[in-house]
Amino acid sequence: MKTILAELLTIGDEILYGQIVDTNSQWMSVELSNAGIKVIRKTSVGDQENEILVALAEAESRVDIVLITGGLGPTNDDLTKPCLAKYFNCEVKIHEEALAEVTEFFKSRGRELTEINRQQAALPVCCEKVTNVLGTAPGMWFERNGKVFVSMPGVPHEMKRMMTDLVVPKLKKTFNTPAIYHKVIRTVGLGESFLAEKIADWENALPSHIKLAYLPSLGEVKLRLTSIGDATDRLENETNALIEKLKERVGQFIYGYGEDPLEVAIGKTLSEKKLTLAVAESCTGGYLSHLITSVPGSSSYFLGSIIPYDYAIKMRQLGVKPETLEQYGAVSEETIREMANLVRAKFNTDIGVATSGIAGPGGETPEKPVGTVWIAYSDKHHTVTRKLQLSKERILNIKMASVAVLNLIRLSLPK
Amino acid sequence: MKTILAELLTIGDEILYGQIVDTNSQWMSVELSNAGIKVIRKTSVGDQENEILVALAEAESRVDIVLITGGLGPTNDDLTKPCLAKYFNCEVKIHEEALAEVTEFFKSRGRELTEINRQQAALPVCCEKVTNVLGTAPGMWFERNGKVFVSMPGVPHEMKRMMTDLVVPKLKKTFNTPAIYHKVIRTVGLGESFLAEKIADWENALPSHIKLAYLPSLGEVKLRLTSIGDATDRLENETNALIEKLKERVGQFIYGYGEDPLEVAIGKTLSEKKLTLAVAESCTGGYLSHLITSVPGSSSYFLGSIIPYDYAIKMRQLGVKPETLEQYGAVSEETIREMANLVRAKFNTDIGVATSGIAGPGGETPEKPVGTVWIAYSDKHHTVTRKLQLSKERILNIKMASVAVLNLIRLSLPK
Repeated sequence: MKTILAELLTIGDEILYGQIVDTNSQWMSVELSNAGIKVIRKTSVGDQENEILVALAEAESRVDIVLITGGLGPTNDDLTKPCLAKYFNCEVKIHEEALAEVTEFFKSRGRELTEINRQQAALPVCCEKVTNVLGTAPGMWFERNGKVFVSMPGVPHEMKRMMTDLVVPKLKKTFNTPAIYHKVIRTVGLGESFLAEKIADWENALPSHIKLAYLPSLGEVKLRLTSIGDATDRLENETNALIEKLKERVGQFIYGYGEDPLEVAIGKTLSEKKLTLAVAESCTGGYLSHLITSVPGSSSYFLGSIIPYDYAIKMRQLGVKPETLEQYGAVSEETIREMANLVRAKFNTDIGVATSGIAGPGGETPEKPVGTVWIAYSDKHHTVTRKLQLSKERILNIKMASVAVLNLIRLSLPK
Repeated sequence: MKTILAELLTIGDEILYGQIVDTNSQWMSVELSNAGIKVIRKTSVGDQENEILVALAEAESRVDIVLITGGLGPTNDDLTKPCLAKYFNCEVKIHEEALAEVTEFFKSRGRELTEINRQQAALPVCCEKVTNVLGTAPGMWFERNGKVFVSMPGVPHEMKRMMTDLVVPKLKKTFNTPAIYHKVIRTVGLGESFLAEKIADWENALPSHIKLAYLPSLGEVKLRLTSIGDATDRLENETNALIEKLKERVGQFIYGYGEDPLEVAIGKTLSEKKLTLAVAESCTGGYLSHLITSVPGSSSYFLGSIIPYDYAIKMRQLGVKPETLEQYGAVSEETIREMANLVRAKFNTDIGVATSGIAGPGGETPEKPVGTVWIAYSDKHHTVTRKLQLSKERILNIKMASVAVLNLIRLSLPK
C-alpha cells in the first residue's frame, strides 16, 4: 500500500521572527500520524507572496496532502487566501453560505458585521468551504490531480476543531489510509547510548515495517515503535511481542508506556498501594515537589515538603543533628539519610525522600564538585541512598536530581 | 546594505511525528533577529537521507546561512553527520581535539567512553568543529561559496550555549551584519491588551526604523524595541529616550530590562537590602520555591520553604490554627495571612510569603471555583494579601500564582 505523504505549511512572520512558538504543527502531526498519514516535512514561511507561492509549488511536488495554517486574518498582511487563488488560478467571490455563517457568528455575539469581516466570506471559487464553527475565517479545501490542499486558521482552537471534525475524516476517506500503530516505551535510569548498546541486537532484528526512535529527555529515554500495515490489531500484537523481548534486556528500566510521565506513574503506584509521601529537598529547591504536585489528584498521596535551604533550617525545622552537619557536611550520605528519615517521621508518612547537593555554580569544594548530589529514600523497611555526579549546569542538575529521586522511589517501594 | 538571510533546518522524525514541540527554532529566530540576520524559512525533515539532502540543497539556493539542529545523537537513526559529509563530498574521520573533549566529558562524570560515544568525535574533514561544552556531539561549521552551514545538537541547552557563545559571534563577524540595537522592557501585572491600550499613542509615534514587539508569557509581558541603523550608540540613545517616555505611562509595571526574569530581579533587590525570605506554599506545590532557587546565589537570601499540602501539615508543621482552617477553609484570606506570618516567624526571616488555592481540576466549591488563589506577603511592618482568579488549567494556575507572589514581593518590600 502506498504511504500517503503530507506537508505542513505554516504562514506568518510571527513564526519566523520567533514571536510565537508553533505548537499547532506538533498537534497536527500527531493527528495525521494517528490517521495513517505520514508527515515528511514542515515548512514555515513569512507573509510574502513569492515565498508562499514557491512553498506551495515545492510542497505539491513532494506530497499528497498540504495542510496550511495561518495568514487568514482580515487584515492586509494576511496573504494566504489571495495566494491560493493565484496558485489555483481562480477568482475570489463572496461565498453565500460562508457569508451566512460569518453573519451568524457576529450576530450571536451581539456584534456588527463590518466590511472587513464580510470579506472573510469571500473564497476562491475553485475551493470547497470548510466551516469554522469557532471563528470567522472559513477553511478552504482544494483538489488538483489527486492532491489535496487544505487551508485552516492559525488560531489553535479553531484549527483543532476544524481538523478533528472535518478535515481528518475527509482525508481518511479521500486517501483510504493504511493502518498505523504507535507505541511509546518509557525508560529511566540509563542514558541513550547505554540503552542503545543493550538493545542493539533486538533493534537490528526489527522487521522493516517497524521503526524504532529514541526520544531522550532529562534523565529519561522514550523508545517509540511505529508500525505500518493492513490491520491495526495485527500490528498491535506484533508490537507487543517485540516489547516482551525488549523487557528481557532492559525491563528494569521501563516504567511505563504511552503518555504518562514518571511523576504520573509514581503517583498511580502510590495511590494503588495507599502510601503517602513527604519530601525534604535542599539542592532541588522545590522542583521535585513541583513535579509531584503537577499531577492532578496528587494531594491524595503527597502530604508536603520542607525545603531546608539554609543550615539553620536543616537543624531547627527538620531536626538534622548539628554534629552530622559539622562532621560530614550537608552534602553527605549521613546527612541525606537523616533528612529522609526525619521528614518521614515529622510528616508522619509512609515514605520520605530527600535531596542535598551542589547545584552550582557556587559552593563546590575539591571533594564535592558542582553536580555532586546525594538522594535518599526511606520507608519503615529500609533507607536507600545514592550519590549522583551530574553536570555543571544549575537548572539541569536540579531537574536531573529530581527525576533520579522519582526513579529511586520506583525502585525502592515495597513490592 | 544587503540583508543577510537565514533558514532553520530541523532534522528528526520526533518533530515530524509530533513527539516533541520544536521550541529551539523560536529561540534561534530571536537570537538571529537580534544579530541583524533575517530568518525567511523554517524547514523540518525526518531522519531520511534523501529528504535531508534535498532540504540542504533547497536551503543553499535561498539563503546565506543554514542553521541545522538535531540528528546528531550516537544512534543509527541519526543521519545529520553522514548527510553533511555526503553533501559536502568529504570523508568522516576521528577529530583528535573532539575526541579529547568527548573523553574528558565522560571522564569528568566518572563514566567509560564506549565505542558508540567515541564515534561522536568523528567529523567530516571539510568542516570546522564547534565545541559542545554541555554534551558529547560537537557542532560543525561548513563554508562554501560565501554561504555558511552550521550543524548543532537538538538538545536545547546544548544548542543554546553553543549558539550564544560560538555560532552567533562568528556569524556576525563572517557577514559583517548591520548595527542593530535591541532593548527588552520587562513588565508584570498588566495583561497584553491593557498594556497595549495604555501605550497606544507612544507606540504609534515610534519612528519607522524602530519596531515594537509584545512578548507575553505567564503573568508577564516583555516589550522588545528593535532599531536598525548605522551606529549602535546613536540607536541606544534614541531607544533610551523613548523608554523614558514609556515610563511616564506604565512605569509602575516595569520591573527591569534585558534578560533577567522577575525572580532574578527580586533576588538582586533582596541581596542589596540584605533581607531574607521564607515561603509557605500550598497550591503552588514547590514551583514558587523552584523559581526562587533557580537563581544562582539564591541561598544568600532564601532560607527555605514549607509546602503544607495536607491540612494536618498546615497545622502541625506550620502552626495554622485549627479554628482558622475550620471557620474559613484553607483557601481564605485569614489562612493565607497566618501562613505568611507563621513561616516568617518559624524560619526567622525578614519576609514570609504564602500561597493557598484551588489549582484544579478537583477541589472546587461553588464559592471557590478552580483558579481561586490567595497569596500573602509579610514583613515586620505589614502583611499584604491578594485574591487571584486565574484559569481552569492546573499548571497555568501554579505558574501564574507563583509569578504573582514574586510581583507582590516587588510591590510590598520596604522602600
